[in-house]
Amino acid sequence: MINNKQVGYLGPEGTFSNEAALKVTDSKDTLVAFDNIISIFESLADHEIDEAVVPIENSTEGSVLVTLDALMHYNLKIRGEFLLPIRHYLLVQKGVTIDDITLICSHPQAIAQCRNYIHQVNKRVHATSSTADAARYVCELATAGVIGNKMLSRKYDLEVLDGEIQDYDNNVTRFALISHEDDFQITSNDKTSIILSLHGDKPGGLYEVLSIFARESINLTKIESRPSKKGMGKYLFFIDMEGHRNEPKISHALNDVKNQTDFFKVLGSYHQITVGGN
Amino acid sequence: MINNKQVGYLGPEGTFSNEAALKVTDSKDTLVAFDNIISIFESLADHEIDEAVVPIENSTEGSVLVTLDALMHYNLKIRGEFLLPIRHYLLVQKGVTIDDITLICSHPQAIAQCRNYIHQVNKRVHATSSTADAARYVCELATAGVIGNKMLSRKYDLEVLDGEIQDYDNNVTRFALISHEDDFQITSNDKTSIILSLHGDKPGGLYEVLSIFARESINLTKIESRPSKKGMGKYLFFIDMEGHRNEPKISHALNDVKNQTDFFKVLGSYHQITVGGN
Repeated sequence: MINNKQVGYLGPEGTFSNEAALKVTDSKDTLVAFDNIISIFESLADHEIDEAVVPIENSTEGSVLVTLDALMHYNLKIRGEFLLPIRHYLLVQKGVTIDDITLICSHPQAIAQCRNYIHQVNKRVHATSSTADAARYVCELATAGVIGNKMLSRKYDLEVLDGEIQDYDNNVTRFALISHEDDFQITSNDKTSIILSLHGDKPGGLYEVLSIFARESINLTKIESRPSKKGMGKYLFFIDMEGHRNEPKISHALNDVKNQTDFFKVLGSYHQITVGGN
Repeated sequence: MINNKQVGYLGPEGTFSNEAALKVTDSKDTLVAFDNIISIFESLADHEIDEAVVPIENSTEGSVLVTLDALMHYNLKIRGEFLLPIRHYLLVQKGVTIDDITLICSHPQAIAQCRNYIHQVNKRVHATSSTADAARYVCELATAGVIGNKMLSRKYDLEVLDGEIQDYDNNVTRFALISHEDDFQITSNDKTSIILSLHGDKPGGLYEVLSIFARESINLTKIESRPSKKGMGKYLFFIDMEGHRNEPKISHALNDVKNQTDFFKVLGSYHQITVGGN
């Protein structure tokens, strides 16, 4: 572990990623805000920062596609993961009521996670590059509200008009701590993540891959497909499993799986980081 | 087949969905524009329209999540599918140059499909609810450009500043024709689509399901996971296969698969509709 680490996150201050980054760093670390996820990966690949916290998937909206694509393209590793409960609030300038606003601003993922609420209050939607950008916009515009976390109300001096407005109560985002190395140490609750594409891009070939994991009694926690961008029907599979890549059964299975694939990459072995509540 | 059908699509006029709908209807049919995909499904479920054309997935960006969620929730069927090549253009007011514009407007899917281009020309991005909405915005604003199809230039009197700007050349969108009934007739090139969730939501259980299709030598053309929205790690699987649900081997396999699932739904059997070029 490096002391006084520089840790990148999707800024600006006040975003859910900021909240997440605060939870897995200590006061000696320096948090560095980036304005998009690709820049975080670039900066980490260039050793300008030591680690980064990036959102991987949300329980309502699914994977953060930019993160999956970047994990595919950059030679970086997942060295930890943790879950952050997501509670959305509608924030407005002081004294503004729901009838005063005609527009709701937020990041597209936040908008998607509150689709029923937005439909119900019947407002127009404006997508911004972060929830904090939306808050800054709302500071200038009394006829707009922002959907985001509660931190934004303190930081931008906005008022909470409505709370817990996410469509599904158990809304959770899974964040990854990424770095140049994954976690070498085998513990009792490790996970390993891989990406692969199948020979001939045949989705049916996934059966052969899954039979290898079944043979070794390896428990898979996620199977996700993404277009490989090489044309319709050609997919990459993101697979997470329980166990460390240095355990013999995982290591054997991964070797056999590799033979079934055109492309194969281990994203890392890591364990779940325990984070405190709000 | 109903004559003089009312066919819904994601409008307004000039969108890729409009282009797609024109390709699978004839001049006796009436095209009905909707401003969002959920309203199309609602209207079809209420029998206000007879059929609808909706985008299902794009070869670069993956599935259209709203469509998958709606296929899950509404009791409607896929009765045909077809592929539309997607060519993106940057359109501006007459006489405007690339240096004059500071902003690029479009639908989030179009923005995502031209991410490299937008990064290269280094403009801010404004997300709109359709490419046609973005075109209307650009008609009012000389410092903005719209990314969309070529139809928009005629319809909104805009000039083509740049063409074929999509990140990947073989960019194709798969559209579905949806209705109350799927296609009963067995042909030599049918496909069948299903949605399922596994007992106990264990991704590893997908192996049992795939082994049934492997046993019957059924070729799968797509396997996609989506969060079931019931919490992290709980997934729905969208599976497409070659063959008609009324063929004995498909029918047997689907019966056996059903026993492995908590939730099971056949989205329909259908064949690929041949569409003309541009």
